[in-house]
Amino acid sequence: MHCKCSKAGGPQLMDSPRVARPINKNLKPLETEPMIGETPTLALDSWLTPNSVFYIRNHFDFPDISDSPDTDWVVNVNGSFKNPGSFTYSDLSKFPKHTQAVTMECAGNNRTDLTPRVPGNQFESGAVSTAVWAGISLSKVLESFEIDPNSKELLFEGKDSGEPEPGVKTQNFQRSLPIDVAMHPDTMLAFEMNGEPIGVEHGGPLRLVVPGWYGMASVKWVRQITALNSPFEGYFQTYKYMFRSGEIPARPVSLMQVKSLITSPMNGTDVKGDSHSISGFAWSGNAEIDSVDVSTDGGSTWKPARLVGPSDKYSWRQWNFSWISTNTGHHTILSRAKDKLGNLQPAKSNWNELGYEVNGFKSICLNVI
Amino acid sequence: MHCKCSKAGGPQLMDSPRVARPINKNLKPLETEPMIGETPTLALDSWLTPNSVFYIRNHFDFPDISDSPDTDWVVNVNGSFKNPGSFTYSDLSKFPKHTQAVTMECAGNNRTDLTPRVPGNQFESGAVSTAVWAGISLSKVLESFEIDPNSKELLFEGKDSGEPEPGVKTQNFQRSLPIDVAMHPDTMLAFEMNGEPIGVEHGGPLRLVVPGWYGMASVKWVRQITALNSPFEGYFQTYKYMFRSGEIPARPVSLMQVKSLITSPMNGTDVKGDSHSISGFAWSGNAEIDSVDVSTDGGSTWKPARLVGPSDKYSWRQWNFSWISTNTGHHTILSRAKDKLGNLQPAKSNWNELGYEVNGFKSICLNVI
Repeated sequence: MHCKCSKAGGPQLMDSPRVARPINKNLKPLETEPMIGETPTLALDSWLTPNSVFYIRNHFDFPDISDSPDTDWVVNVNGSFKNPGSFTYSDLSKFPKHTQAVTMECAGNNRTDLTPRVPGNQFESGAVSTAVWAGISLSKVLESFEIDPNSKELLFEGKDSGEPEPGVKTQNFQRSLPIDVAMHPDTMLAFEMNGEPIGVEHGGPLRLVVPGWYGMASVKWVRQITALNSPFEGYFQTYKYMFRSGEIPARPVSLMQVKSLITSPMNGTDVKGDSHSISGFAWSGNAEIDSVDVSTDGGSTWKPARLVGPSDKYSWRQWNFSWISTNTGHHTILSRAKDKLGNLQPAKSNWNELGYEVNGFKSICLNVI
Repeated sequence: MHCKCSKAGGPQLMDSPRVARPINKNLKPLETEPMIGETPTLALDSWLTPNSVFYIRNHFDFPDISDSPDTDWVVNVNGSFKNPGSFTYSDLSKFPKHTQAVTMECAGNNRTDLTPRVPGNQFESGAVSTAVWAGISLSKVLESFEIDPNSKELLFEGKDSGEPEPGVKTQNFQRSLPIDVAMHPDTMLAFEMNGEPIGVEHGGPLRLVVPGWYGMASVKWVRQITALNSPFEGYFQTYKYMFRSGEIPARPVSLMQVKSLITSPMNGTDVKGDSHSISGFAWSGNAEIDSVDVSTDGGSTWKPARLVGPSDKYSWRQWNFSWISTNTGHHTILSRAKDKLGNLQPAKSNWNELGYEVNGFKSICLNVI
């Protein structure tokens, strides 16, 4: 075939998503400095979470990235690499694009359900969302830097910084991952979220996405990657995001625990007639969802729900249950999930000081009229 | 468990997407009355197409639906049903929600590639998009109306109307489907597109989605469903959307033909160095994609590409090819797809009077510098 080469236009797509201070008026706000907000209840009923209602949890204010067009975004690669150096956002175009649907949950989601209450952002059920992310497998990007085989962890640093709490020194947000997790082909440097460049509020132009892990691992605004020969000990690694509960030894929060939610009908709704469709989502960072059961009598008896919709490896699974009610009045509906490794959603969440991994049964009440 | 029923708030999500006249300034416009536009080239490189750049092809102006809030949207069900009647948008909440990613292509996509040129919208490659659609299986909704077992087709009528061309009588947009296609569990009445209520420009509040078929089958603004005992003969059924080419008997356009596109790098781009990532998409309405081959020498030799990313039944498949170039200058790159039924993408599209099913190889040219 004959080559008809004509210079292509420069990439131009939509209004710039890289505003310095986005206003996500559609989120249920928890804080504004830094911006923290939950996905509204109604949007939780959709398999895909639109970017404008994808939950946001930052530790510091958004960094100013207005002086860094995507093409100038530099990521430094240092520590125990044979060829330390850097790469830019535009260097990524020579690697194969990696696309996957990933459900992300904040480790503090449903913190309000713990008794006694614990401090921290008082999330209800909306600190969980699903997007189709695209980027490059991190392991591909790091190949040419040649990591030292004795490296234990990769440390990721975002451009965001501040005082984590009064009296703690100003620092950038930093989190490390074990080498095998960081170099897994599905761990990626993402630049796209639901088909759009990642907005600054979600970590654009470049965000780490660690499938299966609670959201804190998916470092936003990545600008430095450091290979370490010993475990990282930083504020957000060894003080925050630790599951601490009385006498049990503290352990770090990592993979999302098996969990299910009922998303339709909404809690407290009047429903007509005797035929009802109950639906929701279930997910686990450890494995795909195996089954979901539903109880319509407050937990006395259980019946299996049907798993429906997309079944991607790292995304939540929608489930559905057809319920024929036999009497009017209030009914308490519960769901429980099991993953393919046999992990069971517990009836009651395990209380812990910082309120992480809250995954107990989450009932709704329906009033049959 | 004790029931703590509290009245939930009414559903409220985002700014109303139901504007009477949306402005999709991000699309590549072809017409404004009715609005017709292609997905811009850069957005074609993403597995998911954001709603704002999902292609639009309408035959008439958008209908005015401002007097029909979703809850009042009525669909009449008539013809050969035992219990004809109607249902409303809100009646759908009692059925299980059905979610699936579906690639939709306009039957006239790539019409500009035909030689000699044919009339009609001069689409380049952007009349194809992918969204996660959610709704209800049509067969579930129609169960209670009890279709006559002798019915041959279901006819769908949208609320949009006008003169298809000067001199042809004013009519609503109408298309029929064979019963087995209409009643397939994956044929659905959709109310959600990428997690948002379907905007009026894409057929909201209620649109038929027929996976695998060219877009004309997915009737927008559905307001009437009629069961027929004999084949429907309407303008858009027997005059338009017919593959007519010289002496071959005309046949209706139905399932999307096997096809592939190269979406990155863009045609006419300068690429540096000798290592390049070539990627694109492949799809077929007949079956899932089996393989994609790439030629970097204008079609003389071919090598297999890797299939990557989500592999949902009805969505396109991303593919990737790592190319090591051996010399600078212009190179013509081609891709060819095969589906699991053995259908092969043809080198050259089959010319036809109205310019449908254009699926020949679509080369790009790269300038290695």
